[in-house]
Amino acid sequence: MMTAEPAQTKPETPLLDTVDTPADLRRLAPEQLRQLADELRSEMIDAVGTTGGHLGSGLGVVELTTALHYVFNTPDDRLVWDVGHQAYPHKILTGRRDRIRTLRQGGGLSGFTKRSESEYDPFGTAHSSTSISAALGFAMANKMTGAEGKAIAVIGDGAMSAGMAYEAMNNAEQAGNRLIVILNDNDMSIAPPVGGLSTYLARLVSSGRFLGLRELARKFARKLPRPLHVAARKTDEFARGMAMGGTLFEELGFYYVGPIDGHDLDALVPVLENVRDAAEGPCLIHVVTQKGKGYGPAEQSADKYHGVQKFNVVTGEQKKSTASAPKYQDVFGKTLAKLADEDATICAITAAMPGGTGVDLFAKAHPDRSFDVGIAEQHAVTFAAGLAAQGMKPFCAIYSTFLQRAFDQVVHDVAIQNLPVRFAIDRAGLVGADGATHAGSFDVTYLATLPNLVVMAAADEAELAHMTYTAACHDSGPIAFRYPRGNGTGVAMPEVLENLPIGKGRIVREGSKVAILSLGTRLAEAEKAADQLDAKGLSTTVADMRFAKPLDEELIRKLIATHDVVLTIEEGSIGGLGAHVLTMASDEGLTDTGLKIRTMRLPDVFQDHDAPDKQYDEAGLNAPNIVDTVLKALRHNSAGVEEARA
Amino acid sequence: MMTAEPAQTKPETPLLDTVDTPADLRRLAPEQLRQLADELRSEMIDAVGTTGGHLGSGLGVVELTTALHYVFNTPDDRLVWDVGHQAYPHKILTGRRDRIRTLRQGGGLSGFTKRSESEYDPFGTAHSSTSISAALGFAMANKMTGAEGKAIAVIGDGAMSAGMAYEAMNNAEQAGNRLIVILNDNDMSIAPPVGGLSTYLARLVSSGRFLGLRELARKFARKLPRPLHVAARKTDEFARGMAMGGTLFEELGFYYVGPIDGHDLDALVPVLENVRDAAEGPCLIHVVTQKGKGYGPAEQSADKYHGVQKFNVVTGEQKKSTASAPKYQDVFGKTLAKLADEDATICAITAAMPGGTGVDLFAKAHPDRSFDVGIAEQHAVTFAAGLAAQGMKPFCAIYSTFLQRAFDQVVHDVAIQNLPVRFAIDRAGLVGADGATHAGSFDVTYLATLPNLVVMAAADEAELAHMTYTAACHDSGPIAFRYPRGNGTGVAMPEVLENLPIGKGRIVREGSKVAILSLGTRLAEAEKAADQLDAKGLSTTVADMRFAKPLDEELIRKLIATHDVVLTIEEGSIGGLGAHVLTMASDEGLTDTGLKIRTMRLPDVFQDHDAPDKQYDEAGLNAPNIVDTVLKALRHNSAGVEEARA
Repeated sequence: MMTAEPAQTKPETPLLDTVDTPADLRRLAPEQLRQLADELRSEMIDAVGTTGGHLGSGLGVVELTTALHYVFNTPDDRLVWDVGHQAYPHKILTGRRDRIRTLRQGGGLSGFTKRSESEYDPFGTAHSSTSISAALGFAMANKMTGAEGKAIAVIGDGAMSAGMAYEAMNNAEQAGNRLIVILNDNDMSIAPPVGGLSTYLARLVSSGRFLGLRELARKFARKLPRPLHVAARKTDEFARGMAMGGTLFEELGFYYVGPIDGHDLDALVPVLENVRDAAEGPCLIHVVTQKGKGYGPAEQSADKYHGVQKFNVVTGEQKKSTASAPKYQDVFGKTLAKLADEDATICAITAAMPGGTGVDLFAKAHPDRSFDVGIAEQHAVTFAAGLAAQGMKPFCAIYSTFLQRAFDQVVHDVAIQNLPVRFAIDRAGLVGADGATHAGSFDVTYLATLPNLVVMAAADEAELAHMTYTAACHDSGPIAFRYPRGNGTGVAMPEVLENLPIGKGRIVREGSKVAILSLGTRLAEAEKAADQLDAKGLSTTVADMRFAKPLDEELIRKLIATHDVVLTIEEGSIGGLGAHVLTMASDEGLTDTGLKIRTMRLPDVFQDHDAPDKQYDEAGLNAPNIVDTVLKALRHNSAGVEEARA
Repeated sequence: MMTAEPAQTKPETPLLDTVDTPADLRRLAPEQLRQLADELRSEMIDAVGTTGGHLGSGLGVVELTTALHYVFNTPDDRLVWDVGHQAYPHKILTGRRDRIRTLRQGGGLSGFTKRSESEYDPFGTAHSSTSISAALGFAMANKMTGAEGKAIAVIGDGAMSAGMAYEAMNNAEQAGNRLIVILNDNDMSIAPPVGGLSTYLARLVSSGRFLGLRELARKFARKLPRPLHVAARKTDEFARGMAMGGTLFEELGFYYVGPIDGHDLDALVPVLENVRDAAEGPCLIHVVTQKGKGYGPAEQSADKYHGVQKFNVVTGEQKKSTASAPKYQDVFGKTLAKLADEDATICAITAAMPGGTGVDLFAKAHPDRSFDVGIAEQHAVTFAAGLAAQGMKPFCAIYSTFLQRAFDQVVHDVAIQNLPVRFAIDRAGLVGADGATHAGSFDVTYLATLPNLVVMAAADEAELAHMTYTAACHDSGPIAFRYPRGNGTGVAMPEVLENLPIGKGRIVREGSKVAILSLGTRLAEAEKAADQLDAKGLSTTVADMRFAKPLDEELIRKLIATHDVVLTIEEGSIGGLGAHVLTMASDEGLTDTGLKIRTMRLPDVFQDHDAPDKQYDEAGLNAPNIVDTVLKALRHNSAGVEEARA
């Protein structure tokens, strides 16, 4: 997928060139750090210009990255970057500079932190808000074994809106001074952050000047004599050094230090040293940074430079996608907005992904019926259940991989109560550069196992429009429809939307020997394979099943009865369409007297990042492999004797 | 399972007898409420004495229940009880008193709130911490449609430790005064609560007297002129009426009212009226109650009276379980404690269920290596991943149904990184009186679809001990073992624990015609069925597969090759052992020339509460049904002609 690019002129980085690892960095004098940070920033801009990727987040933490590795004894001190998309400067400083221009490319560096990549990545991240829990794990392990070493979590203000960050903070006190949380407050995760916490942080920042070093020292001195005994709980004598009405973080048991200018190395380094050496309990350091810092175009448009295509470093111009077919997410957003013109009960919910899910398009038309709940998938789903219970038609638009975070809410609040929540599941299947952590591999399996759920998958963008409408019409229980990341197939869009019959597939082409049952966008490969099989004299039927649940049992029975080989294919792991078809077939005794059936699915491995097409080739979910699987199945005909390949 | 009981003398309840619904209650004079509450309490104690169930929680909210229905216009105002196990008094007051002595019995009232039971239960609950999200859904639906009506969530302090409660609070401001959260602070969920929030609440309560009515009015008056425009965010002019350093709840956008004595109706009623009529934004009312209030034995031992067996109302004595076999949870806890004597890296994590998971037994022996993180499953799993990454052997002991809440963490933090976290999955399969919300039906499906996971199920308590040891030995990646609620089978416990070979089953009895592949404790039924089949001349093999993943493919191949019928059975829904066996068989072409295979699993419905044996009968997972399924499969032999039953 990479086209040859003329090599850009690399920036001059004489000081950075002397730094291979943090040990080299720690040999520098403090007054050299400013230059190092500047060079690190240039290097990062240049690298991301070459590869595309997450730009703004990394630029915002260049000084913080420098200061953290300067002050702490990494890798023995464990540094956990929340999400990890801001860790490009960290990768440059930790022995991976030689590969930094392979970021997110097949075989190259991951766009997130990854344990297998470096000992400086003690914990892989990618989904948000895991860092404090993980760091607490490191800290408590050290406490139990008596090992030295701090654990430092760096977490953005957006990630702080997720419940698990709060759960972790609520448990932090036991770690004592082994745990340090850096709250990187740039008022911007992917979309602008929402909710009470965000307002609160803004108030914290706006209420005071940034702390000077002297004040900080005073603040610390005041806090040090702090009786920690939890046994004193619930007595009036219990006092923590901070009175009632400290910051929210103090109320949860942290020392709060801040706000601090996250681009001022002269503040950062001594504060971190102070916390490292003098803190008596877990510390939260509130650092204020600017996303995109130091790169004009990114500073001015933080959202556009969150994740970027390759771009021209001088002009900031990003390479445009050449695809002409609309993005799936936009088809969903526009279709839903249009349906909502006619139906005042339709509303849309996103968890901090308004652009990625197309909910932004809905919000433009219906701002009062659009909800961005922040990074809070659990709340999103149960909130939707509440809306449904009060007569609304909520569409919960969440990426497949992130819906995993609300699985219990899908089971407990939606499925058990049979409430008509609509799940628009974006990024289903393999997703390309974001890799295994973002793949939507499991949703059909974990949803289709639930009673009451209807589970659909769109074969193309026209189907997605029909399914959006079908979901709007389906009022008797929950319904989910999944579709991939990226652009559609370019199929003509329907003028009239169809309310698809629940649990019914469609025959796309009719044959007689081989039947391919496809769920989702592998349909195109299935049709290609059918062409090839037809050419070999194996007349092939292709069905777009549309539904993983309920199954079109009638269609399956018919295809099994009338074809020599039946093959299922889907963009998901074991337990999905294939497993459901096999289960139905065995329930009905259809295997008893012989059934050549094969199920093609994602392999039982977490696949590394690469272009989606390459990932699907690696997974074997392509036309040549379909043909091959069919031919192999047919060769089983002749009792054990291998036939020559057709 | 119920034995005949002599009818207890019902308490005298003259006033309560006049109240069928909240409308009747609202016709009473305020000074009558004290008597009503007293009668309600007696009735509840008597009812739970008859049925068993959750006692302490309901007793703690008798006055609150009375006051809420008195002040608010239920059911149009939507009242959502978090967890719902404290809703017995609510059920008595909302038209269900005539069935209150059927609580948690087969066919009787649910032990939680349930939409299908009453219009006064607008949202079913059972898992903790969902109420604020759901109530916010009701409130926002009303806002969008212009409907009247408040939404009230009643949530305990323990439930507040879960991330989703925080996510919901973080989103509450938009609801305005339609949303009221009652924080029912009894310093006790099931186990004593843990963490920073709990300490903080204790400090709030201990720092001040309870608010009198006059102070409350003053407090309110001070708060009313409050500029709400979020647009003012991040400007210094932004002031909310409360200065920096309000309570944590104020910092998240709530008005905070409290603490209030939750047993004092003279305080509760006017405060609720005041909030109902005068609040200008979402309100959090901090109510302090005593769990077990008004029933001596329960007041003195809150944990023992959280969930109770039937008991003698006068003495408080609970009916003892007559089972002699140890509980599975205790076998796990004791085995792990013993293993930890020899291995200093073993540690245990529970999410607010130390007793239910047996982690309390581990904690007694190894307090420094035991962690109760509160109701915070997401954090529990990623914390365990952090511990594993730092070289510890963490055992995460979580009920199957609650592990759903940490599914993304299992995928993203454990499986993708292949970290050796051990999952001890209690309450697998059907669980009896707690019903569908607590059934552990899906874990094999949602875990076995993940690469890197090893998934075991114990057939009896001896197997559980072996699997605990096996998990301790398995250091190359994550491993899960599931086992049911309740008592073991009484099998002899092994003197030496065995490190089971990964992915290998065991033949329990050898036959030649029928092969039953069992996963979990249905093994006993499989053996019973085998006896009956043998008696019919159908020599039957029974295999305890032990592993759902990796499959013992060699064993499966052999059994398929040498038997006429193969049948799988498991205590889980579609997508588990059966689906994996079918998938493997079709991958290998074993169905091509005929394979009589049937998979027995949980049905595709959410089953209501009943005794576990009855639930399994209803599910068809018993010996007679195994026999029946085998016989039916064999009759397919004779091309369409039904044979006479053997």
